[in-house]
Amino acid sequence: MAGDCVIGVDLGGTKIYTALAGADGQVLAEVKIPTEAAGGESHVIARIVDSCRTVRATAGALAGRVAAVAVGAPGPLDTKSGVIHCAPNLKWHGVPLKRLLEEALGEPVFIDNDANLAALGEYVYGAGRGMRDMIFIAVSTGIGGGLILNGRLYRGAADGAGEIGHMVVLPDGPLCSCGNRGCLEAVASGTALAAQAGELIGQGCGAGILAAAGGDPARVSAAAVAAAAAAGDGEAVLLLERAGRCLGIAVANTANLLNPEMVVIGGGVAGSGELLFAPARREVERSALEPARSTIKIVRAALGGRAGVSGAVALALEKAAGGA
Amino acid sequence: MAGDCVIGVDLGGTKIYTALAGADGQVLAEVKIPTEAAGGESHVIARIVDSCRTVRATAGALAGRVAAVAVGAPGPLDTKSGVIHCAPNLKWHGVPLKRLLEEALGEPVFIDNDANLAALGEYVYGAGRGMRDMIFIAVSTGIGGGLILNGRLYRGAADGAGEIGHMVVLPDGPLCSCGNRGCLEAVASGTALAAQAGELIGQGCGAGILAAAGGDPARVSAAAVAAAAAAGDGEAVLLLERAGRCLGIAVANTANLLNPEMVVIGGGVAGSGELLFAPARREVERSALEPARSTIKIVRAALGGRAGVSGAVALALEKAAGGA
Repeated sequence: MAGDCVIGVDLGGTKIYTALAGADGQVLAEVKIPTEAAGGESHVIARIVDSCRTVRATAGALAGRVAAVAVGAPGPLDTKSGVIHCAPNLKWHGVPLKRLLEEALGEPVFIDNDANLAALGEYVYGAGRGMRDMIFIAVSTGIGGGLILNGRLYRGAADGAGEIGHMVVLPDGPLCSCGNRGCLEAVASGTALAAQAGELIGQGCGAGILAAAGGDPARVSAAAVAAAAAAGDGEAVLLLERAGRCLGIAVANTANLLNPEMVVIGGGVAGSGELLFAPARREVERSALEPARSTIKIVRAALGGRAGVSGAVALALEKAAGGA
Repeated sequence: MAGDCVIGVDLGGTKIYTALAGADGQVLAEVKIPTEAAGGESHVIARIVDSCRTVRATAGALAGRVAAVAVGAPGPLDTKSGVIHCAPNLKWHGVPLKRLLEEALGEPVFIDNDANLAALGEYVYGAGRGMRDMIFIAVSTGIGGGLILNGRLYRGAADGAGEIGHMVVLPDGPLCSCGNRGCLEAVASGTALAAQAGELIGQGCGAGILAAAGGDPARVSAAAVAAAAAAGDGEAVLLLERAGRCLGIAVANTANLLNPEMVVIGGGVAGSGELLFAPARREVERSALEPARSTIKIVRAALGGRAGVSGAVALALEKAAGGA
């Protein structure tokens, strides 16, 4: 007879990524479907339920009872009550996701912040395996983070920990989506890089980046900056260097505060590799104190787009085993 | 018959503060003696041993066996091996303090970073009682810190956590003692305030601060700035406001990263109270995200100069009880 299994769900603004795994964490079935956020809350929740039923049906006789379901969702949210306070990209406010899913599925459901679960995924299955204190940073459209401290996901007093994207690295700097100025996200995210490239082009510069965007100023993006930089374009390289330095300030501040063994950096912008990482490492060399400076390893994330769903599986396994 | 007791020691550059407490944490005897750091390593260690024997003798029949001795020392140090890597104000390098004290005392000895133990003191006996996640910041000659996370002292991977004083709050700002630029310590410590006041006076301004220093430019200090500000001097108030804003940036960054329930601020400069705290709170209001912003309470330390020795007693009690 097949043993208990768990389901992990990564709920994003554009897709729902769901995986079913055995007690050993091995994925037995998975499915990725569009979120269809425009359909509204009930529609999205029905799609999550469908995705769970799909993976259960696909796994068939390989899997037994579903012992726990864990969902990584955009926050802020409350892991205890299972309510999502606010998820702008889903247009959700005060959605009791845990209760609604438990009613529909008849199985215990746990929710957590998506960046927290990506951190947990990298810790259990990815770049952070074997570490005890690990920081995960996703440099993407925005910048999110998650903390593994003493070998456990650290959520803070009100599930608000890990917001490294809103560390101020440039006081009175560019306006951030949060309303504040000079946050890491406002200077080093994909959105920030695209804006900086757009400014350059508006000033008649940035020809290499514009070419990488197919010559269309409306299509200038972080990906175009990355492509131009990879091809050796000086202006694009400089933009990534500035972003990397700011990222390095945030990493150094975090190293001085938490003295982690490892910082794992993921997200699309991390795809630029050493063009971003080298200036970040230089800043950490300069700004982190001993022993934090010698302790810290700065590495690329290993799981890519699978980090979130992997972390959801890890959380579900932890919950199924009776853990916190 | 009297039960087991413990001894806590706060080893500073100018004084050794030692207390003996019963199993309930009640202090039964204490003594404060000059460190006499100029006498060298063996001399200072002999004085620590003397102070332990003094409190044991003073407690007399009130105390039983000494179950553990804990010493808060300047760092960086290694809590496991008990070696102090480097303590500039004692001119110590690679001193195996734990082993030397155990040989002299015949009792189990534990060492930890002084700021960590001040944090633990405020957590167990002071302003942070009942919290689960608490940050302690000492704003004094330098700026140190300690973290209580999930109700435990968090030391990081190599005992390097808590260095909030070296968080960069002003990139390319004033030079810090650590060699980097724009650290919190370089803009908001007592040393930084004194330097800023000295600059003002050098430019022919700062008459109120100079008066508070008895008219002697060589005696301009953070205390003179505090006294002038307390008397309403506009320039002194502005210096504290700027320091408070930088402190607030560091607190907001820490709130966004760790979502603590409380930040406890101690050290001499914190004596200026709301002149420092109000601008810090305004910056946190502006820069911290929800739920971190609503969660955090920013309060004055309660134990003053007793925080370190209280934390040493708390650590010794924890060790005597078999804790980590």
